[in-house]
Amino acid sequence: MKKIYFTVGPSQVYPTLYKHLNQALKINIPSLNHRGADFKELFKQTTNNLKTLLNIPESYQIFFVSSALEAMERTIMGLTEKTSFHIITGSFGKAWANFAAELGKNVLKSDLLYSKIPKETELICITQNDTSTGFWIPMEDIYNLKKKYPEKLIAIDIVSSIPYVDIDYKYIDVAFFSVQKGFGLPAGLGIMIVSPKALEKTEKLIKKGIVTGSYHSLKNLSEKAKDFQTPETPNVLSIYLLNQVIKDMLKISLKKIRENTDKKAEALYNFFDNHKKYQPFIKNHKFRSPTTLVIDVKGESERLRKKLAKKGFIIGAGYGDNKLNHLRIANFPSHTLKNVIEMLKYI
Amino acid sequence: MKKIYFTVGPSQVYPTLYKHLNQALKINIPSLNHRGADFKELFKQTTNNLKTLLNIPESYQIFFVSSALEAMERTIMGLTEKTSFHIITGSFGKAWANFAAELGKNVLKSDLLYSKIPKETELICITQNDTSTGFWIPMEDIYNLKKKYPEKLIAIDIVSSIPYVDIDYKYIDVAFFSVQKGFGLPAGLGIMIVSPKALEKTEKLIKKGIVTGSYHSLKNLSEKAKDFQTPETPNVLSIYLLNQVIKDMLKISLKKIRENTDKKAEALYNFFDNHKKYQPFIKNHKFRSPTTLVIDVKGESERLRKKLAKKGFIIGAGYGDNKLNHLRIANFPSHTLKNVIEMLKYI
Repeated sequence: MKKIYFTVGPSQVYPTLYKHLNQALKINIPSLNHRGADFKELFKQTTNNLKTLLNIPESYQIFFVSSALEAMERTIMGLTEKTSFHIITGSFGKAWANFAAELGKNVLKSDLLYSKIPKETELICITQNDTSTGFWIPMEDIYNLKKKYPEKLIAIDIVSSIPYVDIDYKYIDVAFFSVQKGFGLPAGLGIMIVSPKALEKTEKLIKKGIVTGSYHSLKNLSEKAKDFQTPETPNVLSIYLLNQVIKDMLKISLKKIRENTDKKAEALYNFFDNHKKYQPFIKNHKFRSPTTLVIDVKGESERLRKKLAKKGFIIGAGYGDNKLNHLRIANFPSHTLKNVIEMLKYI
Repeated sequence: MKKIYFTVGPSQVYPTLYKHLNQALKINIPSLNHRGADFKELFKQTTNNLKTLLNIPESYQIFFVSSALEAMERTIMGLTEKTSFHIITGSFGKAWANFAAELGKNVLKSDLLYSKIPKETELICITQNDTSTGFWIPMEDIYNLKKKYPEKLIAIDIVSSIPYVDIDYKYIDVAFFSVQKGFGLPAGLGIMIVSPKALEKTEKLIKKGIVTGSYHSLKNLSEKAKDFQTPETPNVLSIYLLNQVIKDMLKISLKKIRENTDKKAEALYNFFDNHKKYQPFIKNHKFRSPTTLVIDVKGESERLRKKLAKKGFIIGAGYGDNKLNHLRIANFPSHTLKNVIEMLKYI
């Protein structure tokens, strides 16, 4: 039976993945020298295409790392001398704050977006869409925070909202994601989008003698990226596949992909808002994630997931303590409205 | 034209790679949930098979990271409060020492294996086979060092000598490699083999308040590995492929693979020892790498590489400043004696 993965990541693969993977093998991508001209061209094309797709300013740099958790660590090490501030709406925001503490930083936290940011804050860390709760922070709210505190750096985790989330990068200093969610690729590659202001800050820290990391410090990543390379032998195959999927998305247009995502999200939320028993976990429409929906199914998660699996639909369990209470449903570009409607029939 | 990659990494892919990759897609490995039972089983099987193949003690833990350079960083952060000692035989040993300095450690260096290790040394870092020079340190010499300084931790980079190099792990505290060399897999996965003594040391550092990292600290890696998981969403596809290639190697037997490697190394060194112009860069037979040979071709590297490429043989250039002076030739399990003999015809 063909399976459709509605899990929140890894998730359903992008429909063209197999075609691109076969082509990658045909042209020997796994044997490609990461210091050679062909790799540099791949790096250049991939980052340029990503900038075009996501409307990222020319002056921002793009780094390849191994995961979004790595990006959390590199951001803290590279941009904080002493104090980071974390807005927490779920488990991933909490994890980021824990990493900062483990890295010896003074960690300030808030569960509200509208909190007062203390003066000593150097970096504000925000999980824009927390997969554990399905809590979505609208970008306007983040821009307003930056307008209120223009001297603070802002880093956002957009792991499970990209490429749907539409970002005006001039308000953002670091954004990062991994490729196994919205891009429908195998896991093992993280992407960081970094502003010139963030790179200036890391230079200042290095001059002060602060440890900002080693091979993957923001400075080392930046220097290698200027020459279209990475410090280590990277996941070249995944970079190649990402470039191909971005090109596919550019052909469809992100506008169309976003419209489709909205249609699917509407179908899903309508269904559960009108369900007599199962309800969206986030009540306030403003904060509901369109890309990773969390549904409170009152302890019936396992039963429903098994029932759906029999029909070929693989759905995510709740996160952590909510494993048995929640269903988590991804709404990524790889999912079709037809899949969504079909799947909902069995709930 | 079919190409044979004699580059030192990424290199020629393992002959069964395509078959395993197709199977991985068929069973939806890219969509596999990294917190589920199937992934835990894959983790367990892969680490058990690796322990069997390489004769690693049961009490040692195996961690999945993203690259060997990451392993260098994690080793320094996790095992050094103040001072690391580096035995340097080429550019990769030098890089490791630089990372330690960037991480704020007191870095001691030596270019000789038989140097006196200063009292304050906590960790001795050795690149057992430096790909930049083709310099090979016999394991017996490393064991002797450990016997002389049993209280010091020893970490070895075996990136380009594994699975050929035969190690008695009781003398070693950390060993690491990446999969794109001896295992013939796409790049993007690093493996760390870690002793109980190393994990005790990292616990001691944490108790003293030393920063040992965050999501990929040795402690966090160890805790997740106990439950057959990784802190982040890992490169699941690559772990799957590694397990398959290890199983293939177990069928052939590592003894046979080592014998074949010796035969190919002999053919290569015999050819160049008897060549009127091109000579092995390392003169002393004891220190000559069987797995990554560096040949001094007196400025003719580019000409020879182009000539060989026309016949389908892709050979590595020299490293760094020696780009035009050296050829670098890998001798991994993916390379056949037939390939080697055919390739040498065109030099």
